[in-house]
Formats: sequence, structure tokens, C-alpha cells
Amino acid sequence: MSPFPAAETPESFASSNLPPKLHLYTVGTPNGYKPSILLEELHEAYPDNPALVYDYIPIRFSETDQKKPEFLAINPNGRIPALVDDNAGGHNVWESASILLWLVENYDKEFKLSFEDPKERSQALSWIFFAHGGVGPMQGQANHFFRYAPEKIPYGIKRYQEETARLYSVLEDQLKKPESKGWLVGGKFSVADINVFPWVRSHAWAGVDISPFPSVAKWLEAIESRPAVFKGLGVPTRGKKLTKEEEDAKAAEARKNFAFQK
Amino acid sequence: MSPFPAAETPESFASSNLPPKLHLYTVGTPNGYKPSILLEELHEAYPDNPALVYDYIPIRFSETDQKKPEFLAINPNGRIPALVDDNAGGHNVWESASILLWLVENYDKEFKLSFEDPKERSQALSWIFFAHGGVGPMQGQANHFFRYAPEKIPYGIKRYQEETARLYSVLEDQLKKPESKGWLVGGKFSVADINVFPWVRSHAWAGVDISPFPSVAKWLEAIESRPAVFKGLGVPTRGKKLTKEEEDAKAAEARKNFAFQK
Repeated sequence: MSPFPAAETPESFASSNLPPKLHLYTVGTPNGYKPSILLEELHEAYPDNPALVYDYIPIRFSETDQKKPEFLAINPNGRIPALVDDNAGGHNVWESASILLWLVENYDKEFKLSFEDPKERSQALSWIFFAHGGVGPMQGQANHFFRYAPEKIPYGIKRYQEETARLYSVLEDQLKKPESKGWLVGGKFSVADINVFPWVRSHAWAGVDISPFPSVAKWLEAIESRPAVFKGLGVPTRGKKLTKEEEDAKAAEARKNFAFQK
Repeated sequence: MSPFPAAETPESFASSNLPPKLHLYTVGTPNGYKPSILLEELHEAYPDNPALVYDYIPIRFSETDQKKPEFLAINPNGRIPALVDDNAGGHNVWESASILLWLVENYDKEFKLSFEDPKERSQALSWIFFAHGGVGPMQGQANHFFRYAPEKIPYGIKRYQEETARLYSVLEDQLKKPESKGWLVGGKFSVADINVFPWVRSHAWAGVDISPFPSVAKWLEAIESRPAVFKGLGVPTRGKKLTKEEEDAKAAEARKNFAFQK
């Protein structure tokens, strides 16, 4: 018997009879939303590709699902998200950005969300690593010190909120260039944008103000308005906009159940 | 006039008359050593490829070279390392892991340090992102709280040293598998190992003990003993083994000149 909750069918495939070939282990966090957004974008771009039918397994931090041996066999690091690809003999992919690259390499054959030109592909990689090594971990630390840490440590809060804002300023400088057309690479919406969007979208949870970065704010809105992005943000669950009081209550609950960067 | 120090020729090309085609902007840090190690390994693997002749520009943190407009035109994030590739019309690559992937894609045509098989390539990417989003940033924070922070904050020291050790345990579990043959991916030394090696090598600076991880220690030794790795660790300068007293003095100096994660 599986130690995880049963796999669920996303809304997009509710009326499909095709067997799911991709299995996404995920949680409604910034890293978790990256692959579900891309899966929905790919489905919209290639509606007739049966290899893109996916289901998802909602991992429970409360049950430490992500540290169970069955999960560690998929991702030795014990973190979400992870993907199992039955189109490739059950190949395991882990680390959010690695999943995105696997998906575009195998399922974006017309380069609708990625790049054929080697230099543009390289630029996308530089921005993807910038987000994966910078925005994600630094904003994650801002979340930790601002929301979760059992001790209030002003030095930690300031350090990571300031660094997150600095990283946003790098995005701002790129997005405001006329030739960028409002996107990070190649003048079009791509996997490079998807890879950092869910983090920037959660800026308020980290206590980072977005108003000094108008091009970033416009970019956020443009991405939010895409139907496939909306669908991806519903997997496994759609976070609702919280009031200040609800946010504080959520943070208090999280502190109670605290484990490192779950 | 260039705002940076003059480009230097690495030892490996001291007697060469070929013009350098790759220009590496770097500093002797874990991220900085990644590309110089790979460049030396590639030169050893393909000694007759003139496209692999490189020089390096030793960036000076003391002069904030990495924040000068001429550098930001290469890497908008203002961090080392960065690479300019004249074989590709002066293409700019930034983020250490992005540089490694550009180099193997373009100059490792026989897959001596990378992978032809798509699944192995994907496994390498998962390990590369694991290091780029985990080991690098978390060990970097351990360095910060343990060595550089002007305030002594035990919570920060403990948090990041423990997380770094946990990440090493993930490496240990992989490297100790008999089928790994002591390497992260595909049973051979590759770009996946190069991408994390310089960080793990600096474990003592972060105050993280390596002795609980014997397979990692063995892997470190095996990599250190490669002649090309030795050469790469000499670019731009070879760090010498410090005594405890020298390390403390170095940390004190670093605290004096402290700027965020230079």
C-alpha cells in the first residue's frame, strides 16, 4: 500500500480517459507550483499529446511524507517537488528547475516555452540558476526568519529581506529593458519566467515590498492572467488570499510544526 | 581602459601562442573554482582544441570590480564567476553552474565529462541543482554566520551548519552505493561532481565536520588528486592550507571588509 495519499486528477484532465503518464509529487509552495504551471502551459500548447497527461500526489508535511523511504527513492534529498515520468520508463526527476528542464526538453519540441537557439537557451539557464541559487534560497531564508523562526532575530530578517529585494532589483533591470518585451529571455514568456514567478508572487509572505519594482509587478500581473498559470496554481490546492490576521495565524501554526525548510 | 586588472594566462597555456577564446572573470572561491577546474579538465581531455584556450581576469572584491557597469554588462547579478565566449561572438554566461553546462554542451562533444544519455543528463541536472540551490547557498550562509557576521548569532550558525551537514549526508548516501563507483552520476567523474566539489572541499571554513561522511571524504581525495583539478584550483590564485590562527585572522579581515556574500 502506498504511504502517500491517493493520486489526484487535475481539473484539466477531469474528463479525459487517458492514463496519466507523469506523476507529480507536490505541495502548494513556490517550488511546488513551478512544475504544475509548466505542465498546464504544455498541455495548453500541445493539447493532443497524450504523454502530457499527469496526475499529482499531494505530499503531507504533517506526516513527513517527503522523508519516507518510498519518497527518498524518488528524490534522495527528501524535498518536493519530484516527478516520475512513465514515458521514460519511470525516470525520476527532482529539484524544481531540473523538472522544468526535463519537461521542456522532452515535451516542448516546438520551443513554445523554451529556446532552440543555443545562446538563448544558455541565457535562460543563467536566469534559471540565478533564481534557483538566489531568489529561492534567499527568499526562503527571509520566510524563515520573518515567519517561522522560534526566536525573533532582527539581523536574520534584515539580511534576507534586503538580499531578496536586491535580487528583485536585478529582475527589474532586466524586465524594464525595452528589448525584453517584459520577459526575462528572448522577448517571450518562457520556462525562465515560470522558474522564478511563484517565488516573486509570494513576496508579501517574506515581508518584501514589490512597489519599488514596477516592471516586476507588471510581469507578475501578466503571468497571473494566463489561464494555464491559474490552473497550475490550483495543484495540489489553491492558496487563497489571506488577510493580515489569517497570515499571522498561519505563521503561528507553521512555527508550531516547524521543521527545516519543509 | 579596462576597469579590471589585466587578463592573465593560466600555467597550462603559458607556452601557447594561440589567442585565448574564453575569458573567465573569477576569484578564488568555491563558485570561482568550478569553471577553472572544468576548463582544465576539458583542456586535458581535448588538448588540441584551440577553442578551449582561455585567460582569466582576477576580479578584486576590494575594488568592488563585480559591481562596475562593465561587469554588470556581463553578469547583471554582479557576482563571480562569469565567462565571455569569443567562439560564440562574445556570448556572456553567468552563474557558475550555467557556465559549466555551456562549456560541456559546446566543448565536450565526446561526453568525457558529461552525458549523452538523456536520463543520465537529467540525473546530472538534478544533482547540479541540488548543489546550486542547496549546498552552495546553505554552506555560504554557514560561512556568513560562522565567519563573517559582525554579530555572533548561535541560532544562525547552528541552522546552517546543520543543514550543510544534512546535505552532505545526501551526497554520502549517493556516493556509498556500490553502483555509484564513488561518483554522483553514471559511475564516472563528471560535471556533476565538479559543480559541488569546491564547496565540500571548503567544509572546514564553514565549521562543518566531514568525518561522519567517509564516502564523501574519499570522493574529495579522488578529485583532489586529479592533475587538472589541481591546475584549476590555481586560478586565479592558489589558496594555501591555513593554520587555525591564520584562518581566524583571515575571518577577522573579511569581517572588516564585509559586504553581502561577495
